[in-house]
Amino acid sequence: MGADRGSVDVCVSEVGTRDGLQNIDTVMPTDAKKRWIAAEAAAGVPEMEVGSFVPARLLPQLADTAELVEFATGLSGLSVAVLAPNLHGVRAALASGAHRVSVPLSVSETHSLANVKKTHAQMFEEIAAMVEAIAEGPPAARPALEVSLSTAFGCTLEGPVPEDRVVAMAERAIELGADEVGLSDTTGYGNPAQVRRLTRRVHAAVGADRLTGIHLHNTRGQGLANVMAALDEGLTTIDSSLGGLGGCPFAPGASGNVVTEDLVFLLESMGLRTGVDIEALLAARDGVQAALPDETLYGFVADAGLPKGFAYAGATVD
Amino acid sequence: MGADRGSVDVCVSEVGTRDGLQNIDTVMPTDAKKRWIAAEAAAGVPEMEVGSFVPARLLPQLADTAELVEFATGLSGLSVAVLAPNLHGVRAALASGAHRVSVPLSVSETHSLANVKKTHAQMFEEIAAMVEAIAEGPPAARPALEVSLSTAFGCTLEGPVPEDRVVAMAERAIELGADEVGLSDTTGYGNPAQVRRLTRRVHAAVGADRLTGIHLHNTRGQGLANVMAALDEGLTTIDSSLGGLGGCPFAPGASGNVVTEDLVFLLESMGLRTGVDIEALLAARDGVQAALPDETLYGFVADAGLPKGFAYAGATVD
Repeated sequence: MGADRGSVDVCVSEVGTRDGLQNIDTVMPTDAKKRWIAAEAAAGVPEMEVGSFVPARLLPQLADTAELVEFATGLSGLSVAVLAPNLHGVRAALASGAHRVSVPLSVSETHSLANVKKTHAQMFEEIAAMVEAIAEGPPAARPALEVSLSTAFGCTLEGPVPEDRVVAMAERAIELGADEVGLSDTTGYGNPAQVRRLTRRVHAAVGADRLTGIHLHNTRGQGLANVMAALDEGLTTIDSSLGGLGGCPFAPGASGNVVTEDLVFLLESMGLRTGVDIEALLAARDGVQAALPDETLYGFVADAGLPKGFAYAGATVD
Repeated sequence: MGADRGSVDVCVSEVGTRDGLQNIDTVMPTDAKKRWIAAEAAAGVPEMEVGSFVPARLLPQLADTAELVEFATGLSGLSVAVLAPNLHGVRAALASGAHRVSVPLSVSETHSLANVKKTHAQMFEEIAAMVEAIAEGPPAARPALEVSLSTAFGCTLEGPVPEDRVVAMAERAIELGADEVGLSDTTGYGNPAQVRRLTRRVHAAVGADRLTGIHLHNTRGQGLANVMAALDEGLTTIDSSLGGLGGCPFAPGASGNVVTEDLVFLLESMGLRTGVDIEALLAARDGVQAALPDETLYGFVADAGLPKGFAYAGATVD
């Protein structure tokens, strides 16, 4: 099978090239990143977050983001996302031609200060300025602006985070002109009951079309259980990372993001079309492992393989 | 907190002492097994499958099952289960005083022949004889007989398994006098949509009170996602294994059962009471690792620890 991005039920959004690479010490050569992006796009992955527009002195691993956006936007049918923590980053994203820009807004103010050195009030000012900067560009080239509510399920610094605050911050971000908000379990604290509650509450507050995606970590092994809750509530974009690369530096030994290979297997086996060929995805994984020989990749499908007689979702109509 | 077995929402049934130990080459000393059982019982685990009544020449790892049942039934409040593949094993289980006997009935006849050297017809004859043997004992001492439908989600030898056959075999087992049937994903092939469908169909066929438990493997990382589907369908007993010990010899490198620690964290964090203290469970895990230094234990909560500010289900009423 091949990618059929027009008819997927769930959009698997690969973030390993950003969330994964920023959490390891190795700086992956730009050519290896391009091979990774090309391999996943060829496997049918519909969206990739290829980097982050942050100062190279802070994250030298991602210094080549502009070049990667240029490369990735040249690949047919791939939605190209980037992260930008501030107005400067959004301007760089606009110049690069990225299709989507994700802005991290930590629900925990302590984490916000640690992560982007800004209070909530300062972040909201920044978001207003980002919306203005994007609006100044030509309409056809305007990227979608998603405000990603980091630490929405709890914070390693503050502990539990009030759900009322998550909802209020989602409302504020939409009022300021963000196209969408996303829920992000930065710390791997989330549980399925919480995913359900928060998704329902944010949907009720800003509309279901303003919250379609979720970013989950597998720090405590709950990633795919949380995905089940997200699907039940109608979310249609799930972030994940090839080999589970990335994650939380506060949880040594625990893996990072939901594993793309295991996620695609979950979705396809349940009859939800992703457009992704799992064998091709596993080949992409092999390429990443070869380029990062010192990094441990996670995931189960890569070890166990596909079940005998496995059928993709909608296989009968292919 | 301590075990409060009378008020759990979900019964976590530890099978590592059976499913785990039969899948590794090391023969764990009986005293170490007793420490394991005692430690999990003290942590609040309400049920444990402590062994299997199979010939010691086939599974020398489990040759001490009778002694372990005697030990475990002496622990306050613990439900003690054993596996028995045939009438001989059920007689041994009766003599041992076990509270529950689980009989594996492979939905794949190829697997049945490989596993217990019996056709379906022969297994049904055996089940009828087991029911008779149990009925002959004093009513107060009668163990519950559960027929566990192995390979219910697919077989490594046959591939996909017809769902009609799973349902028909469940009906037959109940007709013959089994107290309950269980669904068992022996091969780690199952997905949540399948868990939902099969549970609904078997419930419709034999009644919800005749199917309350499920045995899931994590071979492809789908264990807790499948648990979510099982909970949605009202199942209340979930098998799991400390450190994910056990599993399928046909999937090298992949882990085995759902990890008890991660399962308890899932349930408690969702507000479902298990009666289990996670810190005490992690201490039990450390004991098992010390007794099995060459075995790899799986699971995420053991590495990541509990979230800052974590609260058990019903913590406010403790």
